[in-house]
Amino acid sequence: MKAQRESFFATETEFDNANTVIFGAPFDSTTSFRPGARFASKVMRSESFGLETYSPYLDADLTDAKFFDAGDLELTFGDTNMALDDIRKFVAEILAADKIPFMIGGEHLVTLPAVKAAFEKYADLRLIHFDAHTDLRDDYLGAKLSHATVIKRCHDILGDDKIAQFGIRSGEREEFAFGKARTNLHPFNFEGLESILEKFKNYPLYFTIDLDVLDPSVFPGTGTPEAGGVTFIELLNAAMKVIEKADIVALDIVELSPHYDISGASTAVALKILREMLLELFVKEQNK
Amino acid sequence: MKAQRESFFATETEFDNANTVIFGAPFDSTTSFRPGARFASKVMRSESFGLETYSPYLDADLTDAKFFDAGDLELTFGDTNMALDDIRKFVAEILAADKIPFMIGGEHLVTLPAVKAAFEKYADLRLIHFDAHTDLRDDYLGAKLSHATVIKRCHDILGDDKIAQFGIRSGEREEFAFGKARTNLHPFNFEGLESILEKFKNYPLYFTIDLDVLDPSVFPGTGTPEAGGVTFIELLNAAMKVIEKADIVALDIVELSPHYDISGASTAVALKILREMLLELFVKEQNK
Amino acid sequence: MKAQRESFFATETEFDNANTVIFGAPFDSTTSFRPGARFASKVMRSESFGLETYSPYLDADLTDAKFFDAGDLELTFGDTNMALDDIRKFVAEILAADKIPFMIGGEHLVTLPAVKAAFEKYADLRLIHFDAHTDLRDDYLGAKLSHATVIKRCHDILGDDKIAQFGIRSGEREEFAFGKARTNLHPFNFEGLESILEKFKNYPLYFTIDLDVLDPSVFPGTGTPEAGGVTFIELLNAAMKVIEKADIVALDIVELSPHYDISGASTAVALKILREMLLELFVKEQNK
Amino acid sequence: MKAQRESFFATETEFDNANTVIFGAPFDSTTSFRPGARFASKVMRSESFGLETYSPYLDADLTDAKFFDAGDLELTFGDTNMALDDIRKFVAEILAADKIPFMIGGEHLVTLPAVKAAFEKYADLRLIHFDAHTDLRDDYLGAKLSHATVIKRCHDILGDDKIAQFGIRSGEREEFAFGKARTNLHPFNFEGLESILEKFKNYPLYFTIDLDVLDPSVFPGTGTPEAGGVTFIELLNAAMKVIEKADIVALDIVELSPHYDISGASTAVALKILREMLLELFVKEQNK
Amino acid sequence: MKAQRESFFATETEFDNANTVIFGAPFDSTTSFRPGARFASKVMRSESFGLETYSPYLDADLTDAKFFDAGDLELTFGDTNMALDDIRKFVAEILAADKIPFMIGGEHLVTLPAVKAAFEKYADLRLIHFDAHTDLRDDYLGAKLSHATVIKRCHDILGDDKIAQFGIRSGEREEFAFGKARTNLHPFNFEGLESILEKFKNYPLYFTIDLDVLDPSVFPGTGTPEAGGVTFIELLNAAMKVIEKADIVALDIVELSPHYDISGASTAVALKILREMLLELFVKEQNK
Amino acid sequence: MKAQRESFFATETEFDNANTVIFGAPFDSTTSFRPGARFASKVMRSESFGLETYSPYLDADLTDAKFFDAGDLELTFGDTNMALDDIRKFVAEILAADKIPFMIGGEHLVTLPAVKAAFEKYADLRLIHFDAHTDLRDDYLGAKLSHATVIKRCHDILGDDKIAQFGIRSGEREEFAFGKARTNLHPFNFEGLESILEKFKNYPLYFTIDLDVLDPSVFPGTGTPEAGGVTFIELLNAAMKVIEKADIVALDIVELSPHYDISGASTAVALKILREMLLELFVKEQNK
Repeated sequence: MKAQRESFFATETEFDNANTVIFGAPFDSTTSFRPGARFASKVMRSESFGLETYSPYLDADLTDAKFFDAGDLELTFGDTNMALDDIRKFVAEILAADKIPFMIGGEHLVTLPAVKAAFEKYADLRLIHFDAHTDLRDDYLGAKLSHATVIKRCHDILGDDKIAQFGIRSGEREEFAFGKARTNLHPFNFEGLESILEKFKNYPLYFTIDLDVLDPSVFPGTGTPEAGGVTFIELLNAAMKVIEKADIVALDIVELSPHYDISGASTAVALKILREMLLELFVKEQNK
Repeated sequence: MKAQRESFFATETEFDNANTVIFGAPFDSTTSFRPGARFASKVMRSESFGLETYSPYLDADLTDAKFFDAGDLELTFGDTNMALDDIRKFVAEILAADKIPFMIGGEHLVTLPAVKAAFEKYADLRLIHFDAHTDLRDDYLGAKLSHATVIKRCHDILGDDKIAQFGIRSGEREEFAFGKARTNLHPFNFEGLESILEKFKNYPLYFTIDLDVLDPSVFPGTGTPEAGGVTFIELLNAAMKVIEKADIVALDIVELSPHYDISGASTAVALKILREMLLELFVKEQNK
Repeated sequence: MKAQRESFFATETEFDNANTVIFGAPFDSTTSFRPGARFASKVMRSESFGLETYSPYLDADLTDAKFFDAGDLELTFGDTNMALDDIRKFVAEILAADKIPFMIGGEHLVTLPAVKAAFEKYADLRLIHFDAHTDLRDDYLGAKLSHATVIKRCHDILGDDKIAQFGIRSGEREEFAFGKARTNLHPFNFEGLESILEKFKNYPLYFTIDLDVLDPSVFPGTGTPEAGGVTFIELLNAAMKVIEKADIVALDIVELSPHYDISGASTAVALKILREMLLELFVKEQNK
Repeated sequence: MKAQRESFFATETEFDNANTVIFGAPFDSTTSFRPGARFASKVMRSESFGLETYSPYLDADLTDAKFFDAGDLELTFGDTNMALDDIRKFVAEILAADKIPFMIGGEHLVTLPAVKAAFEKYADLRLIHFDAHTDLRDDYLGAKLSHATVIKRCHDILGDDKIAQFGIRSGEREEFAFGKARTNLHPFNFEGLESILEKFKNYPLYFTIDLDVLDPSVFPGTGTPEAGGVTFIELLNAAMKVIEKADIVALDIVELSPHYDISGASTAVALKILREMLLELFVKEQNK
Repeated sequence: MKAQRESFFATETEFDNANTVIFGAPFDSTTSFRPGARFASKVMRSESFGLETYSPYLDADLTDAKFFDAGDLELTFGDTNMALDDIRKFVAEILAADKIPFMIGGEHLVTLPAVKAAFEKYADLRLIHFDAHTDLRDDYLGAKLSHATVIKRCHDILGDDKIAQFGIRSGEREEFAFGKARTNLHPFNFEGLESILEKFKNYPLYFTIDLDVLDPSVFPGTGTPEAGGVTFIELLNAAMKVIEKADIVALDIVELSPHYDISGASTAVALKILREMLLELFVKEQNK
Repeated sequence: MKAQRESFFATETEFDNANTVIFGAPFDSTTSFRPGARFASKVMRSESFGLETYSPYLDADLTDAKFFDAGDLELTFGDTNMALDDIRKFVAEILAADKIPFMIGGEHLVTLPAVKAAFEKYADLRLIHFDAHTDLRDDYLGAKLSHATVIKRCHDILGDDKIAQFGIRSGEREEFAFGKARTNLHPFNFEGLESILEKFKNYPLYFTIDLDVLDPSVFPGTGTPEAGGVTFIELLNAAMKVIEKADIVALDIVELSPHYDISGASTAVALKILREMLLELFVKEQNK
């Protein structure tokens, strides 16, 4: 008798056969306002049972796609360095096997070690960042490692003009100034995405989506809801464009905090975005 | 002393004076994912006290309309056939009195016995179906009678080309294929509704609205929220068009699961749709 | 050692240095349907910690604006006259110091004593009212003082043609008739706002926003959600226009009922509207 | 076709055949802290479907008892005097028909008009009061009519030594002093109940239970939970004793605020207490 | 790379090495009142991460015990016979391997097929039943298979005097009569347990615990909370006694409905009971 | 005009006049399971408005007691050392002014820096610890600073036999062994408290209460509910005894996670414990 266990979309693909590797990074220790993103990967995996594997948008089916669900990392709360290093090593291991890591946060700080791992392999790495917030503070109440500083820390690694930000509608005055000068910050929506994709097209790309880029009406289940965001279709189209045009080497979606939306609609939105991204990666892989 | 009791919109119309008969079908026994639609009619009746009876959209008032609230059926959980048969008989009784049954689900499977009853009276019955899901599976984990198979079962009764589906954005690949071939499946929105209304105009019509056709931002209170749905105004306009143009003989709205939206907004949306539908039925009746 | 205490957006401005005075009016005693607006000012103050003080819309920062947070009034529940009189006196005190009172409700009835105080100072006062509901009943179950009668009571004071209403989509037939005849009632949205602002431009203005003018998808946290409302951006733009063009002497936002939206998104929306209004008042003051 | 409607425990007894008349008084307008008791009678009626009519404690069945469910009064929020007067008249009407009114609150202030009506019929009325709170303030923030003053107001009517209080564990110093001097205040539990019953035995009795006398572990669904209360069995035994020994002419249970306990356990406790009280009244009636 | 997956208490024991086999039976299709027991096994497995494996009560540790977590069955909603038969076959398979099946419900009806499977192997099977409810109806709204009839159906199989019931405090008059005559019904608590254990001691025993035998203060997370139940320690001691004294061949715990208790306390109670039962089974096995 | 601000029990005492200083330590960054203790002090302060200042247990009133509410510390999430050091300095500052710090957690780790500060002043410090959990791990997933290691870290400072633990019912086998050998661990309840108080009576004492020592029925609002705990009255009596007999130099109550108990009962329990402790400190101070 074999144990029945949950996996994302009930995938049974083994690591060796997979092109993409999903895993959860249940960490939200630096979240200053409202914690809970730690529960995202667990709840998403569990609820993925309720979503069809077929997409009428792409006319493709997850039962054909080759992705491995590695489960969730066990991360130390209260020791940020230790937790981030565990993520970095895990992402590096997936990259070393020439597969695409697809991380499910957790708070946004989990992106930092994943970017670090990708940068270790790809020195000319670019970063596309969808978010409501700039995440460009240099420190938050004295802490250099925080969900509010993560893109600033990525900029420390990647340098000027290697990052592009979209949908941004919240931050300090100084962050917006920094962003305009050095990280291709595009406020409020996805205007300018195509020219960035053109500019980044010959470089390996890390793609991070903070789901709070969505309007809170669509996605209330997040720690810091910010009115004035994009619609589901706008995000879906933009994400599809990025995957279609760019040379993705790693990606993540972060900041679902499922318990703040007991209707389950936020989790369902996150899962649909995930499904379409997995399918678009699969379609692209097939068309190679 | 007379007992004070709740009724939909505080109607006091008797059965004999009514053109339309509302009743609840509190059944959700085949719901595989998240149950709760059984509570819809009770909560809607109770909350209908908070909604004005006057519509500024139609400049009409429910205090003028003649509808009877029959209350809720008492249905057996765990014996699907028995429950469905109780619904069928009740709908038949209303139809026999030449009144329009307006059923409040419950999960979507409750539509099947109502369609059956309508088909027994009207052999050339047509069906218009608004939903996020095709509901065209042939069985669900072996069960032929399921919320996921209900339109397939209706097709068993009505046959090819008698059904039209709108707003559909979720299903298996095979369901979409079946729908395109045999049930006038229109994905995502209400495009094509007018030509279907033209095509069906000389036939008696059953009209069923699975409220999850709405975007989850508008209607999170449902068992299986599906991102990418229609707006309240889109649904309202489409429903008004169907009632105005078609020869409605029976109708229902299903799949409100009120406890998943503690704000009450989903229930309020369902009630406003119900009010406008009742008023449009009334306006049409008056204009005869 | 000094006690640390919460204030709106952590303001430390003293009363004497402020142009605007925020205070809470935690009263919802006449709410017939679902109470809870009493908690709005307390929850908003507490959550304001999570919102940036900088606005990328206006490129302005609350740390520059001069507003005083007076805290919450302690109002008597169960004795409506006593509670309203306490509000009236408090608003009068602020007006007497030539500052702008910015009241955070509470239910909509709190607007009445504030309008009364403003009218005592400004005999030619005008009123602009954003709301889903007409609030034009003459009494509610026999009570003259009710959230459902508040604009009718304001009309008793101000008279015909001194009030303009926008976004209205719910009320009795008689209320709509009254509104059309005597209060410049504009249904559903903000069409006609510019001509009203032109008409009212030389008069002192009281500006009241019942936040349920927003669609429930954006703002579910309110006592009586009404489908078919305006978007966040529509409300924001309309409010900015009013503040920019009119001679505001007092204002309020009412009817957030925070516990009905556990995601916190409704509170976040209310706070963003509040921030932008404070900033626009500040920008205008600076440009004088 | 007859409309199906909910009644308490599905009773179909008519007023004329009933000994006891249940009705709801959905009023909580003076509740200063956390409102919601207005929802109690509606939720209890609805959930009473889930409770067996048979009591293994008393070996008696509600299907045998003769009680009428009059429904809920429609009370004016925001005008306390009007609401209380409507209750008083309704209770007087039941008493005039020589039946026992059994009121379901609402906040505790609803007891005042019911006591008034009973006192109008029975000049030598006594009052037994179970509660966590003394309710003996003379005013609350200036209001004489409040949930916090209700027993003081009853004392105004009945006078010294006509009231007995049990389970009391919260109040101001002055209230405890007053209670000890003039209302037979028994703190914390039911010690002394038997001697009070002996003392009151030849007088008509009004019996009021504020359910927050229960420990919050048993009954969290109330506006002001007070640790250190009695158990379910202690309350049940005490209530049974009162009904058995005293000459009950009217009674009530108040202060269930069902939405604060989403488990439904508080409502279930209230219903079981209600069932046992109705049955004990019935058993006593039969033994006459 | 190996996938990380959740199991009960993180067990990694394989089937072949296990004495006991845990599995979930996520079925609640006949629940008439409030569904949700279907979520119990999933939530318990997930939350078991938060409970220590060591018991200070028994001074024993789950890391030593040999139990296999088979995962959850995938059961058909809406076709009760099919679902029950899948359970029966699965239990039979475990029994055939000479292991003890430990089923996590689900509603109480899942006990029926498990008892059937055990009876097929052990013709002299006895049943001990802890519950708030008799579950002795012969049918429920016409359905023979229901959570309210399950022990009656077990009696159909096992016959008179083979069943003993404890903690019972709710049911119809006829059920209590039947129970007293034919199923050793012990009301309210565990009095008489020792003499039943003496009587049943030479027979194979099925042990079923409906967790609503607990008082709702301890265990609010259940479909039908019944005031007046036993404490955690009383249940723990009684369950330990049964396992210690009886010859257990199969067992279950049912009717946790985790979403009705958002504090998680009910799930934690269920897990602690489960841990202690597993450990006592282990201790007994070791002492053989 | 002066700003109205919330303080614990509306105290207006200044620091210089106070004997006791309450402050919040909103930190829960190492909580591995379910976060939320960060919200405790804010919610308790806000809800303290609903609790009477008078205690019928002690016949004493908080309006007489001299305590200062310093507000909440602003602590860095994600950098544990920085946060703990901020607490240590703040406690040292209060101790330096010869006042008693009364800290409101936060998770249990906040006790460590407070003990450190007290130990710096009192080299012969003793510690009494009420808790469900031993908190004696040496590390938690590699982290030395964790809510699960806090008493082990205190032992590092204070040494053998300086700590006494009560109510403990959860931990690893090794923790119980360590506790029995070196920290006077008393399992399950308060047996042995009197002899410990006798033993510690001539030493300065730090008193820490993890509120999860209470049974979850009484106190579900905590991160890790553990069945089998003590009652409210048991905890109250034990705490009163400690304050009465010991030479308290600092104290705390921790691990209320208010959002897990939406009834508010857990917060109310915590507040009542706090009130009684403040009053007992006051009574003792007066009797000096």
